[in-house]
Amino acid sequence: MAEEFIVTPWEVKGRVDYEKLISIFGTQPITRDLLRKIEDLAGELHVLLRRGVFFSHRDLDLTLRDYEDGKGFFLYTGRGPSGPMHIGHLIPFIFTRWLQDKFNVNVYIMITDDEKYLDEPNMSLGEARRWAYENTLDIIAVGFNPDKTFIFHDTEYIGKLYPMAIKVAKKINFNTVKAVFGFTGSTNIGLLFFPSLQIIPTFFEKKRCLIPAAIDQDPYWRIQRDIAESLGYYKTTAIHSKFMPPLTGLDGKMSSSKPETAIFLHDDPKTVRFKIMKYAFSGGQPTVELHRKLGGNPDIDVSFQWLKIYFEPDDSKLKKIEEDYRSGRMLTGELKEYLIEKINNFLEEHRVRREQAKELINLYKYDGELARRMWREGPWNIEELNS
Amino acid sequence: MAEEFIVTPWEVKGRVDYEKLISIFGTQPITRDLLRKIEDLAGELHVLLRRGVFFSHRDLDLTLRDYEDGKGFFLYTGRGPSGPMHIGHLIPFIFTRWLQDKFNVNVYIMITDDEKYLDEPNMSLGEARRWAYENTLDIIAVGFNPDKTFIFHDTEYIGKLYPMAIKVAKKINFNTVKAVFGFTGSTNIGLLFFPSLQIIPTFFEKKRCLIPAAIDQDPYWRIQRDIAESLGYYKTTAIHSKFMPPLTGLDGKMSSSKPETAIFLHDDPKTVRFKIMKYAFSGGQPTVELHRKLGGNPDIDVSFQWLKIYFEPDDSKLKKIEEDYRSGRMLTGELKEYLIEKINNFLEEHRVRREQAKELINLYKYDGELARRMWREGPWNIEELNS
Repeated sequence: MAEEFIVTPWEVKGRVDYEKLISIFGTQPITRDLLRKIEDLAGELHVLLRRGVFFSHRDLDLTLRDYEDGKGFFLYTGRGPSGPMHIGHLIPFIFTRWLQDKFNVNVYIMITDDEKYLDEPNMSLGEARRWAYENTLDIIAVGFNPDKTFIFHDTEYIGKLYPMAIKVAKKINFNTVKAVFGFTGSTNIGLLFFPSLQIIPTFFEKKRCLIPAAIDQDPYWRIQRDIAESLGYYKTTAIHSKFMPPLTGLDGKMSSSKPETAIFLHDDPKTVRFKIMKYAFSGGQPTVELHRKLGGNPDIDVSFQWLKIYFEPDDSKLKKIEEDYRSGRMLTGELKEYLIEKINNFLEEHRVRREQAKELINLYKYDGELARRMWREGPWNIEELNS
Repeated sequence: MAEEFIVTPWEVKGRVDYEKLISIFGTQPITRDLLRKIEDLAGELHVLLRRGVFFSHRDLDLTLRDYEDGKGFFLYTGRGPSGPMHIGHLIPFIFTRWLQDKFNVNVYIMITDDEKYLDEPNMSLGEARRWAYENTLDIIAVGFNPDKTFIFHDTEYIGKLYPMAIKVAKKINFNTVKAVFGFTGSTNIGLLFFPSLQIIPTFFEKKRCLIPAAIDQDPYWRIQRDIAESLGYYKTTAIHSKFMPPLTGLDGKMSSSKPETAIFLHDDPKTVRFKIMKYAFSGGQPTVELHRKLGGNPDIDVSFQWLKIYFEPDDSKLKKIEEDYRSGRMLTGELKEYLIEKINNFLEEHRVRREQAKELINLYKYDGELARRMWREGPWNIEELNS
């Protein structure tokens, strides 16, 4: 069965063949040796690494070497605030927070209200900014270190960003963004300029930057790596995640615009139950009798896949579920109940922390140690900008 | 003799046929009625109007009507700081200052350090910013009202500009800037975005904006006029000047990159004398004898044209010079001496005011009444931006 798939920053279609994607994008697989190295340094392996959700990278080995050499590194990730966040959106942030905890490094989080406003024909700037606020609460709820984390909204922080953005913009022409992002003559000139902004947080420190993000964002980093050294900075490094599969089956990715494919962070327990019961694609058999006899297929069962990706971090429990489901001892309904409880517990805790985030937002945006420095001194000194 | 000419924001070539340009650009000529109206309101006509240097407009009549109706208007002009300024660069500022004096209105002056950095392959951002500073001194020397004038450098003021710039950018696509400015696939993405910035000072007030500028800048205003009303603002109005002819002849325009064509504001008296004596294209005859007999041609004589454009504001004196030169009573050398003295007097006064400008720069950029308001409140309120 030959499968077609598409992965760009704006579209993920079809059943993604991740091994093939590594060779198309020219990235590197995360090898056992690399996992062992991370485990050595961090003391453990995060479930998203153990389960292969983060599966690919660019120069992660160099970043770890810099860490061992005492040079350090920093983390950068972000969010395009186009609407409410679903659990798939949280994956890179959860992993980034873990890296921050283990390596004690700064994290920069860019909220691209400008990009989403420019990209969505019917969105007002006010809406993009409201989603920037709402999404920031969800991100803060993940629990970053408030003195080593700076969350910034593009349309607020642009005064500090623009001088470096034009230094990057001068090195990128229309042909390049056309080839890399598929921009056309109808693309508005704000979107054409935007890649210069998304690139520059990789220059926030004179250390290697590590970007944990879904692999569809990689084209930005490819451009960054082409021009970084000519500007006197490191090529960024990256660690790429797979996509959280939609509830409805393994093709494509969870999508905010198709609510049946996603569990939103604001979905209440009844909605979670309803969506999973109704939409979660099952690898089970049509009848209980057949299921008991033939067993289910966890490899295509979305509920099982979600447990595997994140919601059952206990390897032995997951193994038991897999065996029970494959053998027919566990029914689809039971598997779904298990997932529903895991997700509802997760969301309940998330919402408590999200409420607390309303009191913390100024800390991450303006008043924490790193944020204060980023506003007071800016990311670059005058010599760096004027050269 | 069929003459070809080119007028774009980056190039002026050939002998410009200004009447033809009005029809190509679709602007309106400044009629006698309009001149009379300006004279009525201002109490006099500036020499640049009397001599037809400002020769074309868009909706200037509407702006004057708004003034009469008590609605008022405001002025906007600017400078791309690519190097030292010559006297041709000062023309729009001198005229803008006159308009400010006569109509008592606010003036906004944009210094596009970003554009020049993006446009000049070998210029560093530091150089563009240094020229922004130097050019600002020359502009301040013109003598604007410090409480009604705001001079801003793009890379400094971008924090206030960007949210409105992306609202404009969303309405302009690559095909448009390609058609209007001749951008290509090799144009960098910073320059592609830049027109959104040049446009938005026309929205600084909820009144009609009047832009005094050389006619080559008109393409920006054409785009502005296409989109302004959909954003809830007035179509800008404009008053266009001809180009200051190069010393070397009437084709093209005075150009900083060809020093023999221009008198720079920093040229000392000896340099001015040398350049005019050596390069100023003459309408005189090859020998004194022939000149006395046949007379000179002031229509093609650059020295005479410069006197006519600005440096001899006295109409009767100019008329006498024209007659004397045409009849052969006045020799080319005498005409040049006359111009040299006029220019050296002008530059001497300019340089005194330029020295004083070093003490005034903060007033125009930050501390004057208008500047303070533009930094404190910004040009737009949150509702205007978020809509």
